[in-house]
Amino acid sequence: MLGLLVATDARWAQGAARDLPRVLCDHAHCEMKAASNALSLAGRCIGHAEVMRALVELAEEELRHFRRVLEELERRGIALGPPSEDWYAAELRRRVARGRAQGALDGLVIVDRLLVASFIEARSCERFKLLASALASADPALSAFYDQLFADEARHHRLFCELATRVCGDEGHVRMRQSEIALIEAALVGELPLAPEIHG
Amino acid sequence: MLGLLVATDARWAQGAARDLPRVLCDHAHCEMKAASNALSLAGRCIGHAEVMRALVELAEEELRHFRRVLEELERRGIALGPPSEDWYAAELRRRVARGRAQGALDGLVIVDRLLVASFIEARSCERFKLLASALASADPALSAFYDQLFADEARHHRLFCELATRVCGDEGHVRMRQSEIALIEAALVGELPLAPEIHG
Repeated sequence: MLGLLVATDARWAQGAARDLPRVLCDHAHCEMKAASNALSLAGRCIGHAEVMRALVELAEEELRHFRRVLEELERRGIALGPPSEDWYAAELRRRVARGRAQGALDGLVIVDRLLVASFIEARSCERFKLLASALASADPALSAFYDQLFADEARHHRLFCELATRVCGDEGHVRMRQSEIALIEAALVGELPLAPEIHG
Repeated sequence: MLGLLVATDARWAQGAARDLPRVLCDHAHCEMKAASNALSLAGRCIGHAEVMRALVELAEEELRHFRRVLEELERRGIALGPPSEDWYAAELRRRVARGRAQGALDGLVIVDRLLVASFIEARSCERFKLLASALASADPALSAFYDQLFADEARHHRLFCELATRVCGDEGHVRMRQSEIALIEAALVGELPLAPEIHG
């Protein structure tokens, strides 16, 4: 699905559905980190006006999602604690950087960052769908919320792929990097502890 | 005006109106930096749900402003270049930090950061008004744009003051720090080179 080579272990959604407070807190922080990452990328894409504008609009959307997750937390009387490290996202960036040609041009580093973001959106998307299914009978409202977010993340995944192609200007290079990053991502997902977090 | 002790030299607006490309580019970057700063502060205010939410909404508004300035740039065929350092904002933070009690609690550091942000908004607000007046006959549309932003920045100034009071819980401390920062800010404004930038 969405360029992912392996599916998340089905046990992840069962565990996540049993610890919704932790999932919702982690999810809120994921939205905030996604917004910050989009802004950071926008700052690196000043020479590409349309790409920069799309990233800023994306950041605004992630912030609206953040506020919607906050509302869910408040409705349930759950206080948001400090963020935990997103090992999956950080490690994906590290491994992709290690696999990049030494001294790669700045433009290619940005292409990689956009593609890494596209994979993080794709994995989040897959997991929101799993969560929506796992919650369908126990919490239909939250299930519907995750179904909506599933659609949004799928759109973000496609957007990041398009932006990478636009910044790169070389579809062949983008396709090659997508294949390489897909392999790195698949190996990484196999190492995750199946914790009740979006990328756990 | 808005807690500012000294007015901007009238020559600033005349110079700014003569170099609108530079002012608009700098202004775009100011909006982006304001959004990033609001998000960074939101991340420091996790224990204050309402404050965090207000800062995230503020960041969203700054990003909408950023996109509006981008539209102005595009309409005029001006390409956005890389940001220049905002010496005024950086130096205000440095001087306020130097004037803070050594080893101040983290909460008081955040109160200072919120108050510094309130002064930056106040100064931007004053300058948008000056710019709106300077452009009234030469560029009525841009003048109206800056008049609108003047009102928005005034609201942001008040919001940051309120948030500082809410995080601090001690109105006396906030008033004292406001007075101290107002003096630092006034001295700093006297040192500005009157360049065609929002805080020039």
